Amino acid sequence: MSDKNEKILIGASWYPEMWAESEWPKDAARMKELGFTIVRIFEFAWHKFEPKPNQFDFDWAKRVLDVCHANGIQVMIGTPTAAPPAWLSYGYPDCLRTDINGRRETHGQRRHGSPFSRRYREFSARIVEKMVEAFSDHPAVHSWQVDNELGGSDYGDEAHEDFQNWLKAKFGTIENLNAAWGLEFWSQAYQSFGQVPMPEASVGGPEIQERHHPSLTMSVARHRSETWAKYVAMQCEIIRRHPKNKTRPITTNMTSGYGLDWYKINGSLDRVGFSMYSDLQHYHFNLSNFDRMRAEKSDGQANYTPYYLLETAPSWSAGGRMWNIHNNAQGITMFSWLSTLLGGSMILYWQWRSHWAGQEMQHGTLVTATGEWSVNKGAMQKLTAEHAVHGQWLMEHPPLRADVAVVLSIENAWAFSIDPIDDGMKYQNIFRDHYYMPLVRSHVWRDVISEGHDFGAYKVVVMPLLPMLKADTRAKLKTFVEQGGVAVLGPIIGYRDEEFTAYKDRAFGGLEEIIGADSALRFTTMWVNDEVHLDFVADGALPGVGALQDVPPKYRNWSEAYTPRAGTQVLARYSGGYGDGLPAILWRPVGKGGVLTIGTAVSESQYAALVHAAMAVAGVEPIASGSPDVVVVPRATRDGKVAGYGVANLSKAAAEITVDGESLLVGPLEARLHKV
Amino acid sequence: MSDKNEKILIGASWYPEMWAESEWPKDAARMKELGFTIVRIFEFAWHKFEPKPNQFDFDWAKRVLDVCHANGIQVMIGTPTAAPPAWLSYGYPDCLRTDINGRRETHGQRRHGSPFSRRYREFSARIVEKMVEAFSDHPAVHSWQVDNELGGSDYGDEAHEDFQNWLKAKFGTIENLNAAWGLEFWSQAYQSFGQVPMPEASVGGPEIQERHHPSLTMSVARHRSETWAKYVAMQCEIIRRHPKNKTRPITTNMTSGYGLDWYKINGSLDRVGFSMYSDLQHYHFNLSNFDRMRAEKSDGQANYTPYYLLETAPSWSAGGRMWNIHNNAQGITMFSWLSTLLGGSMILYWQWRSHWAGQEMQHGTLVTATGEWSVNKGAMQKLTAEHAVHGQWLMEHPPLRADVAVVLSIENAWAFSIDPIDDGMKYQNIFRDHYYMPLVRSHVWRDVISEGHDFGAYKVVVMPLLPMLKADTRAKLKTFVEQGGVAVLGPIIGYRDEEFTAYKDRAFGGLEEIIGADSALRFTTMWVNDEVHLDFVADGALPGVGALQDVPPKYRNWSEAYTPRAGTQVLARYSGGYGDGLPAILWRPVGKGGVLTIGTAVSESQYAALVHAAMAVAGVEPIASGSPDVVVVPRATRDGKVAGYGVANLSKAAAEITVDGESLLVGPLEARLHKV
Amino acid sequence: MSDKNEKILIGASWYPEMWAESEWPKDAARMKELGFTIVRIFEFAWHKFEPKPNQFDFDWAKRVLDVCHANGIQVMIGTPTAAPPAWLSYGYPDCLRTDINGRRETHGQRRHGSPFSRRYREFSARIVEKMVEAFSDHPAVHSWQVDNELGGSDYGDEAHEDFQNWLKAKFGTIENLNAAWGLEFWSQAYQSFGQVPMPEASVGGPEIQERHHPSLTMSVARHRSETWAKYVAMQCEIIRRHPKNKTRPITTNMTSGYGLDWYKINGSLDRVGFSMYSDLQHYHFNLSNFDRMRAEKSDGQANYTPYYLLETAPSWSAGGRMWNIHNNAQGITMFSWLSTLLGGSMILYWQWRSHWAGQEMQHGTLVTATGEWSVNKGAMQKLTAEHAVHGQWLMEHPPLRADVAVVLSIENAWAFSIDPIDDGMKYQNIFRDHYYMPLVRSHVWRDVISEGHDFGAYKVVVMPLLPMLKADTRAKLKTFVEQGGVAVLGPIIGYRDEEFTAYKDRAFGGLEEIIGADSALRFTTMWVNDEVHLDFVADGALPGVGALQDVPPKYRNWSEAYTPRAGTQVLARYSGGYGDGLPAILWRPVGKGGVLTIGTAVSESQYAALVHAAMAVAGVEPIASGSPDVVVVPRATRDGKVAGYGVANLSKAAAEITVDGESLLVGPLEARLHKV
Repeated sequence: MSDKNEKILIGASWYPEMWAESEWPKDAARMKELGFTIVRIFEFAWHKFEPKPNQFDFDWAKRVLDVCHANGIQVMIGTPTAAPPAWLSYGYPDCLRTDINGRRETHGQRRHGSPFSRRYREFSARIVEKMVEAFSDHPAVHSWQVDNELGGSDYGDEAHEDFQNWLKAKFGTIENLNAAWGLEFWSQAYQSFGQVPMPEASVGGPEIQERHHPSLTMSVARHRSETWAKYVAMQCEIIRRHPKNKTRPITTNMTSGYGLDWYKINGSLDRVGFSMYSDLQHYHFNLSNFDRMRAEKSDGQANYTPYYLLETAPSWSAGGRMWNIHNNAQGITMFSWLSTLLGGSMILYWQWRSHWAGQEMQHGTLVTATGEWSVNKGAMQKLTAEHAVHGQWLMEHPPLRADVAVVLSIENAWAFSIDPIDDGMKYQNIFRDHYYMPLVRSHVWRDVISEGHDFGAYKVVVMPLLPMLKADTRAKLKTFVEQGGVAVLGPIIGYRDEEFTAYKDRAFGGLEEIIGADSALRFTTMWVNDEVHLDFVADGALPGVGALQDVPPKYRNWSEAYTPRAGTQVLARYSGGYGDGLPAILWRPVGKGGVLTIGTAVSESQYAALVHAAMAVAGVEPIASGSPDVVVVPRATRDGKVAGYGVANLSKAAAEITVDGESLLVGPLEARLHKV
Repeated sequence: MSDKNEKILIGASWYPEMWAESEWPKDAARMKELGFTIVRIFEFAWHKFEPKPNQFDFDWAKRVLDVCHANGIQVMIGTPTAAPPAWLSYGYPDCLRTDINGRRETHGQRRHGSPFSRRYREFSARIVEKMVEAFSDHPAVHSWQVDNELGGSDYGDEAHEDFQNWLKAKFGTIENLNAAWGLEFWSQAYQSFGQVPMPEASVGGPEIQERHHPSLTMSVARHRSETWAKYVAMQCEIIRRHPKNKTRPITTNMTSGYGLDWYKINGSLDRVGFSMYSDLQHYHFNLSNFDRMRAEKSDGQANYTPYYLLETAPSWSAGGRMWNIHNNAQGITMFSWLSTLLGGSMILYWQWRSHWAGQEMQHGTLVTATGEWSVNKGAMQKLTAEHAVHGQWLMEHPPLRADVAVVLSIENAWAFSIDPIDDGMKYQNIFRDHYYMPLVRSHVWRDVISEGHDFGAYKVVVMPLLPMLKADTRAKLKTFVEQGGVAVLGPIIGYRDEEFTAYKDRAFGGLEEIIGADSALRFTTMWVNDEVHLDFVADGALPGVGALQDVPPKYRNWSEAYTPRAGTQVLARYSGGYGDGLPAILWRPVGKGGVLTIGTAVSESQYAALVHAAMAVAGVEPIASGSPDVVVVPRATRDGKVAGYGVANLSKAAAEITVDGESLLVGPLEARLHKV
Repeated sequence: MSDKNEKILIGASWYPEMWAESEWPKDAARMKELGFTIVRIFEFAWHKFEPKPNQFDFDWAKRVLDVCHANGIQVMIGTPTAAPPAWLSYGYPDCLRTDINGRRETHGQRRHGSPFSRRYREFSARIVEKMVEAFSDHPAVHSWQVDNELGGSDYGDEAHEDFQNWLKAKFGTIENLNAAWGLEFWSQAYQSFGQVPMPEASVGGPEIQERHHPSLTMSVARHRSETWAKYVAMQCEIIRRHPKNKTRPITTNMTSGYGLDWYKINGSLDRVGFSMYSDLQHYHFNLSNFDRMRAEKSDGQANYTPYYLLETAPSWSAGGRMWNIHNNAQGITMFSWLSTLLGGSMILYWQWRSHWAGQEMQHGTLVTATGEWSVNKGAMQKLTAEHAVHGQWLMEHPPLRADVAVVLSIENAWAFSIDPIDDGMKYQNIFRDHYYMPLVRSHVWRDVISEGHDFGAYKVVVMPLLPMLKADTRAKLKTFVEQGGVAVLGPIIGYRDEEFTAYKDRAFGGLEEIIGADSALRFTTMWVNDEVHLDFVADGALPGVGALQDVPPKYRNWSEAYTPRAGTQVLARYSGGYGDGLPAILWRPVGKGGVLTIGTAVSESQYAALVHAAMAVAGVEPIASGSPDVVVVPRATRDGKVAGYGVANLSKAAAEITVDGESLLVGPLEARLHKV
């Protein structure tokens, strides 16, 4: 759902249920004073809506909508399923999530309800239905948010049984499952689906997981993610039943962990939203998310679908032991601009007014509990004013469609935590720091996509860190390169199948065909007493690659040495170590395109140079040159002509950048729009 | 209870139940040989007293008392409720504490009994009654100790129900509780007291607690502390029933954690006691405890009540993974003297003779398991001889009543761990290192008091780190300054009410009146990319403050910027950051006194200078000048004339100090009495 | 069991149950191609053998044996009790181990079966019986392996009851137990054996244990170890029932933790085996194990019994978070040679072919899942060829019997974790780095033995770190020195009895007699503000010791100062600290021998010098001089004449060593045989 008349909206989250009704008009007036045009409400108000089972009260809430409407504030309504009320938590304990130790979550925090519980899904459906009925006709309503910061496991009996049924639906017989996962190993073979355990699967996160069978752990993670996706889809379906909601976008706020496959959850939604907190330490993390959000709902469309920054601090985060992210006015402004420059159409600050009680009282807000302005009032007024000036132009000139895509694979993130290669090797960090940021810093204009996306929309697809490559992705890659695309594969690619087991016939399960090589040797560079180097071949097939120096990468991983087939060119060979003399990096023309395969960890500069070389083959150029600290965003007319550039300097020092032959000086933490 | 004929007593803890009766006279004779005059016994001997339920045997114990008496050793009798016997642990599991995971404590260690258990309280009462009956007529008995190193949580059903009843008694209806804590937030509102959970409250300690509702967690901590206080009061009441015990002091040994509100527990007792282990790394910790112990039972009295050092190592502590505190003879002697110089009248070493079995066998003692002297026999003989010489003078010349008090607030210590500002910000350390030690090192003679104390006994009251300021404390402060007192408030003061929620009307809940300012802005100095400085106002109202340099403090915290009311003088303003240009430190004359308000973290030297300036207004001077490593204690006649000084050098280098115009050289780790 | 016709065998572990039958001959042929002569199989194949309860299928397995036999590969058969099948795990949950939190182990990993379960022992016995019946007549069978990497606790009801019965059998009455462990302390005394708890005993490992009663924790550890030993003995007895197995060695693979008393487990076996993974960081650890394995089954025999290296990586280990040990071809070759040079007769690599599914897919192998050669094929062929050349000579010239023994005491390792002296003081590391490696590096040819070994076979016995010295060991020591042996005792020796309690009469329980001194003082050198030094006595009794300089050791511990009896010579005295001026190191001639007692931590160079001085008294000389990085192994004829030396350079730099007057240059990571 993309709206040609869309405007950029700026606002905040607000919890009117915490405040006397007399405060509502004061707060709405203050929002107006800041130039705010949207407010996000009701995401935890279940108890106020349904104080007793099946007894509903929406009158107060409609009065909140009235107040907003009277002040010209549009409203995003959140469904409150992240915080069920006490009558539900205590009356129906089967609705609560159960942790790996068999303890049910308790009331008083949030996220205790379980989407694995049939009854909880029923309660959830009912409250959403009633809210849709109560609010959909109100003119203040702009959009819907489903739940809040989804996530969490359930290892209780109902979830476990559902998981076993999910396996049964997939494998048919237990013998099939035993065979698929090689369960004669360690005498693991099960006699029935009812025996299959549900081991802890803390995938994508920093936790240490048990070393249970990796195919089983992967399945637990998949089942969990699918359950959440179905839960979101259910709510979407209810919201869309009402005719007034057909044109209202539905969204939810993704979180930073990779525990859920958000690509699938977002599939049910109209807009991608994200909770993101920023400061100098987090910009690299946020950037990759913006590039992902922009592309995620735009697959197969001519223009990007604007995304929503659903939560970001107006100053600082909640404090405390867990996390403390603080920014100054300059940084907040730059980050907010970065969000819109990269393709967003909404910024919602978390939150509007400080809680006077409960958790997170210390979190940065715009208004204090006593109703005074907190910090950044002026910065906000300036920001909304500037967006009022540039907003229409930005909406008419979305980001230029990128020719380069980098694949971020959630299931492969799981793979790295389920069967880790090395202690320090976390997918999230390695992907971001070693395979994504070098592109940003060398001014490659790029999308971050999933392996489920349409590769045909791009000229270059970059796929690092994908041990598990599904058959349909492999097939899609083949078509892509045959039709003229250039793929940059690896390091780490394609040696596990969809069940996370190894191939028994060919090391790469058929990927051999397009990389133009077989496996010669697989080994690690994590030597204790050896040094592995790369010798780049001087007369290599790709421009500039032969001149690359051996620069050791900052981390080590599994390395592949290849036996090239005829027609495949060797770009670099190993020197030293088990792979001494064997090919490490390959180039193979395939159909109208080609495949660049990187067999081992390379340094960031080498990686950037290799991708640039692949881009040159595909006829793609960087969008700028100059300081690596300046993020450059080409904005274009709807038919693809560059009409300007967003520039944002992430550093505390001024920096220079050249776009379109023109050199720009960008101040410390400055973001601006440069029209051409 | 303070006894004019009181003598300084020195002795040790002893466990005769571990030893053959034939060893008793040998040990008592050895104590006599050291000059020891007191022994602490029976604190874990429940099983020997009541080997079977309701069958008692005190004969052996009376023979122990006889042996002591025969050797001129007085006895402190400990009630044994910290270690219930096996018949109780196994026969009455409802007597055992239950941890947050629902596991009952097991027999074989100690502290497994629960004061939250009605039955355990009954068993406890009975053994205490029987001991009182058995021992109170014995002439060897000097005093009573209740339990040992109290503390511990209980999350079992009985404790939980008691907690819910405690809430009901306080709030009356669940609606009141919901309203008081803002429980519409996250749909937390409860339907009945029976639903209110009892989340883990590891307050005051290093553990990470769940982020449950802070008002709820605070209540759990309060209920726990009150339960322990009632348990102690019950034992005291039983002991005092016997007429012979009317003049015998009752005490117990506080421990270093801030998990319990010892001020309330000590309320039932006659003397404050403490378990404290010392070495160079712990002197700063011990010092603040001595200053607290001296003042704690002396509120509203003309002279200080002597305190008891109930446990300290004669050499080293128990070893092992948990803690290892070692000291040499010089350090042990200095520390023991420090205890009496600062106002103590008893030193009990832990322990007399090495255990031959069980936990803590490695702990330092005076006699080995084989009955030989361990280390420090000579040092002990010298110490008891010196105390024999100076003891009477010390008892006749107690420490001079201090004019300055520093407030140590246990509930605010809890506040910092329940709703932490920052990961590294532990109340215990920040209080001690940044707001207490600078006073000691700059020779401010001071008491450490609670907010419950009578402020009227002081000229200057210093109150850092009190986010939660109760209404009665606020009222007391007002009276104090109006009548001529000077208060030094903050950093961090008064923005939370008694239920640990924020005020909705005025940021400081009325404290505005005496600080003479409203909140202009609240923000943190924990910047990622900003630097906050302080500009002291050159012609400030207080002597010397204008000349202070900007010295960055060693930690950062929440900062307050103020809007001063008429008549309030600005001493310093923020430079840089969100508060740029706004007032940070204020001075306001109030009635006959005044209030110095510090809005942000300051360096130690600035802090000392600010307090000294406030003292100057109140006409209070430092008691000495010179080396910050020398602790100086003025001792005075009972009508308040300085008659001498205790001096103790905490460092390993000789140091100079000037008192009363006379310069003294104090040797490394030397403590001595300097009469004038 | 030692076989004069024994050959050195080299091979790998293989899991044919994971592979199609058509792969078997290919794999066997590849083994032959490498020169492999043995394969280790079936250790996890229980489910394939007994797919349903009491239904057995060994036909497939016999075909595996046939294939091996046809390729000249001998077979070591592993009993599969480390991985029970699903019908057992689910059908008989009483067979599963229970952790300290009461949770049963779950199916799907390994080691879930419990030797504490009567029923599990019955199931185990049955599968072993059936395997013996099925395989013993097959000519391919070379040897048996019992279970795999034994270990693990069980805190379930059956184990707990068994533990209580074990205590009852030992103490007779609960009163005896109470008395033996001093349980009046903390009112711990039990009324019945049924009350005695089973606290966590994570002895020998890095985990932090509860501070439960040390005698109780020690008992839990002993009971666990004995239970495993009985379990192994049961399997051995079944295997030996078959006449064909009388000459087939039985072994199992020890692991690196000190959680079990392997000396006792190995007592039932014919050969000592070990799982050991190597790289530069682990050589010091592996070395001490080789010295131990060689001696362990050789007690009382003229020549050493060859040991088996049952698992070592052919390249790298499994990766992942837990551990990652990688080596290059040179290191793998050196380490393999080191194993045979030091007295081994078998090297089995783990593993042959990469798993295509499940845990440990990433572990280094010789053949990939697709059936291609992985790394190190050439290195393996060279290694097997060299062993074919030198193997017979090596078997005819075993290592020279050592004159020096160092005692490694498993129960004392437990002692250090049950009642730790200091946080950083882990027995395993201190023993290895401070008391074992200095001997290797100064070329003392030595065995590592238990305190249960026959000391009479040695001239010098070195016993550091033995707080707990049993009466029979003390008696054995006395006889040893009286008959001419020299003992080097301490630091840390003999102050705890067999129940891990302290002596009540003499500090060292009678050891006084041979050390020729009583305890003067016990103290620690872990000073906060003191420095303890050693003054070596210039005209000391032992050669060279007087000239030793005071070099502070790298760690501190408990120190003993002595009151020497007549005839005892003081080698060093304390200077500074509690022991100032008191004797620290003693020499006492006893009978025809003598005792060197070291009372405190000494530096590595001092320690080596002291042992060398003791050796000189006993007429023992180092076997080499030169680089400390070169390990030298004297090989001798069966009647004890040195016929050559194994030399292995553990470092990455070439190093020189002098043996028998001849100087050898040994290359980086080179191992070779130098015949004389």
